[in-house]
Amino acid sequence: MSFSPQELMARAIQLAERGLYTTMPNPRVGSVVADAEGNILGEGWHRRAGLPHAEIEALADAGDRARGATVYVTLEPCSHTGKTGPCADALIEAGVAKVVFGMEDPNPAVAGSGLQKLKDAGIEVEGPLLEEQCRALNPGFIKRMNLGLPLVRSKSAMSLDGRTAMASGESKWVTGPAARADVQRLRARSCAIVTGVETVRFDNPNLNVRADEMALELLAAESAAEVQPLRVIVDSRLRTPARAFILQGDAPTLVVTTPGADPERRQRLEKAGAEVIELPADSAGRVDLLSLLQELARRQCNEVLVESGATLSGEFLYRGHVDELIVYVAPKLLGSTARPLFELPIERMGSVLPITITEMRAVGHDWRITATTDIER
Amino acid sequence: MSFSPQELMARAIQLAERGLYTTMPNPRVGSVVADAEGNILGEGWHRRAGLPHAEIEALADAGDRARGATVYVTLEPCSHTGKTGPCADALIEAGVAKVVFGMEDPNPAVAGSGLQKLKDAGIEVEGPLLEEQCRALNPGFIKRMNLGLPLVRSKSAMSLDGRTAMASGESKWVTGPAARADVQRLRARSCAIVTGVETVRFDNPNLNVRADEMALELLAAESAAEVQPLRVIVDSRLRTPARAFILQGDAPTLVVTTPGADPERRQRLEKAGAEVIELPADSAGRVDLLSLLQELARRQCNEVLVESGATLSGEFLYRGHVDELIVYVAPKLLGSTARPLFELPIERMGSVLPITITEMRAVGHDWRITATTDIER
Repeated sequence: MSFSPQELMARAIQLAERGLYTTMPNPRVGSVVADAEGNILGEGWHRRAGLPHAEIEALADAGDRARGATVYVTLEPCSHTGKTGPCADALIEAGVAKVVFGMEDPNPAVAGSGLQKLKDAGIEVEGPLLEEQCRALNPGFIKRMNLGLPLVRSKSAMSLDGRTAMASGESKWVTGPAARADVQRLRARSCAIVTGVETVRFDNPNLNVRADEMALELLAAESAAEVQPLRVIVDSRLRTPARAFILQGDAPTLVVTTPGADPERRQRLEKAGAEVIELPADSAGRVDLLSLLQELARRQCNEVLVESGATLSGEFLYRGHVDELIVYVAPKLLGSTARPLFELPIERMGSVLPITITEMRAVGHDWRITATTDIER
Repeated sequence: MSFSPQELMARAIQLAERGLYTTMPNPRVGSVVADAEGNILGEGWHRRAGLPHAEIEALADAGDRARGATVYVTLEPCSHTGKTGPCADALIEAGVAKVVFGMEDPNPAVAGSGLQKLKDAGIEVEGPLLEEQCRALNPGFIKRMNLGLPLVRSKSAMSLDGRTAMASGESKWVTGPAARADVQRLRARSCAIVTGVETVRFDNPNLNVRADEMALELLAAESAAEVQPLRVIVDSRLRTPARAFILQGDAPTLVVTTPGADPERRQRLEKAGAEVIELPADSAGRVDLLSLLQELARRQCNEVLVESGATLSGEFLYRGHVDELIVYVAPKLLGSTARPLFELPIERMGSVLPITITEMRAVGHDWRITATTDIER
């Protein structure tokens, strides 16, 4: 069965998606080796940092048949030596005739150098092909390469009338198992989960990825859960209880605080297994969120999920740090005295935050709204 | 081309839908005459009160071929003489062999009598067929027949975070033309539009159906606009300005107030063209909403659209009078100091209003959420 170039790249994208939960801090990449008629000779995808890149997997799968073939790869092959050798060299060595790429390397400093190396070796190079879809595989990696910041996704849950809890704080209202599984998958694709000390103190969440709650095929869920995201607590005054669930389990936990934090509290949290770091304070004495995001990018975080209360989520939004909003809507009305979705002190229509709602879909009995913020970057 | 019974009833439902905006206070009904092989011999639908019922139209369309044929009709044929003669008699006279009905007459007092009359005349009777879809044609008519109350639909617009205006009242935030056309169609299918005096005073809306804004085929839009819904203002103290737009135009306007209303104000509104009636007051001295709905049912209103501010809409909801919520979501965040979607004074989780979200869909750049209230009736 022979396929068109678009179909072959679409297949490479599908393969890349298998790495959705496991390649971090690397990008998700897929690759297909095909002959001139579009018959597939080999397939591969990047599985995990330290393991071979997608092109290398696909070349290995194709074996000798790779000679004279065309290689489709969702991301420009690398020309530098990282944990593995440069893929451009391997493609040259395998004697492929042509490389079709989905998008250039998002790092502006090296974009095009892998392609140039291939061209210099006499390999025909075509692309970008299905660029938008290829970019959609790695929104966080791309943003980090371009801006030195991770992609920030804010996750919340509200009633249809935009409320999260009663005025009293009473809040045990249940989103269903389908929504919970969806949150697990959101966590699993993230490099870090950020929450606030208030959420830790009042809800005491684990914020880890649990294989049995992902509603994925067992093997996929298990390998996803092997790569636990970093749990981050924004805690200006180190009020995180040492026995909080978030300090337990296999996932690492980072507590970010402000300069001059109480050394005793710090020691207690470190003894409980957390890493504690000081970041600059903002004008209100809270952890400066831009500094936090820069720190997470420095730690190679591509996608960051903010799972916190209305105050911290509102602060991320208000400062323009949120790229994507995920809002689960439970089929209830909590009323006008209940607590708001985001603490966002906007006074005039001229200051409202414009967003673009990209999807609303049913998730069990709940619904999920996805929106992007319309921020000029 | 021959069709199955299901397909023929589905066709009858399609025909009934042509009367969506025009049959009130009658139900929307469609009918198909077919031979034993399922070939369509005639089609008809009820167009407008005073014009023939669907079966009569379909029989006329089929002519002599109706003899010995099967008639599909979405609603049990009537056995009583209203503005037109009983349809059961017409079917008997036409010599049809069989009648397949979609649902029984929703009026429990007469349900089955039309079918019995047909059976007594030796006509084979089958049904209900596609009952759920047939019932969905006339939710308001059915509720009025069963409970003596109209179906109540509440329409609002909010930002993604559940807000309708800034705290200052500033609110000129625009839903797009697609959402406005959608609202026009919601109005057009309603027998009455209910609003509050505050909305009249501050927004000064027309609340009429405008053919050129419905985004429908011109003929359909024009005949829809010929049947203007009753405009109803809930105005306990008769504060409606005599020059309000809502008192102008072709559509009738009803002002409902409480006993002892100022006779001078009343006279001024009546002079401006409104009908003014007194209804019982509730314990807070406002118009009792159940009495209002009973009055509207008495006036043969099937579907009522509440288009008002958070206070009156919230009151309808809080009292359990709302069947369906339509919420347009504009792609914006208005923030936590902005005004709520509904004034709903709920204090404890035990009292939250459960709903079922039945649809979320894009309407231009906005989105529309449809939900039903989970009220035991």
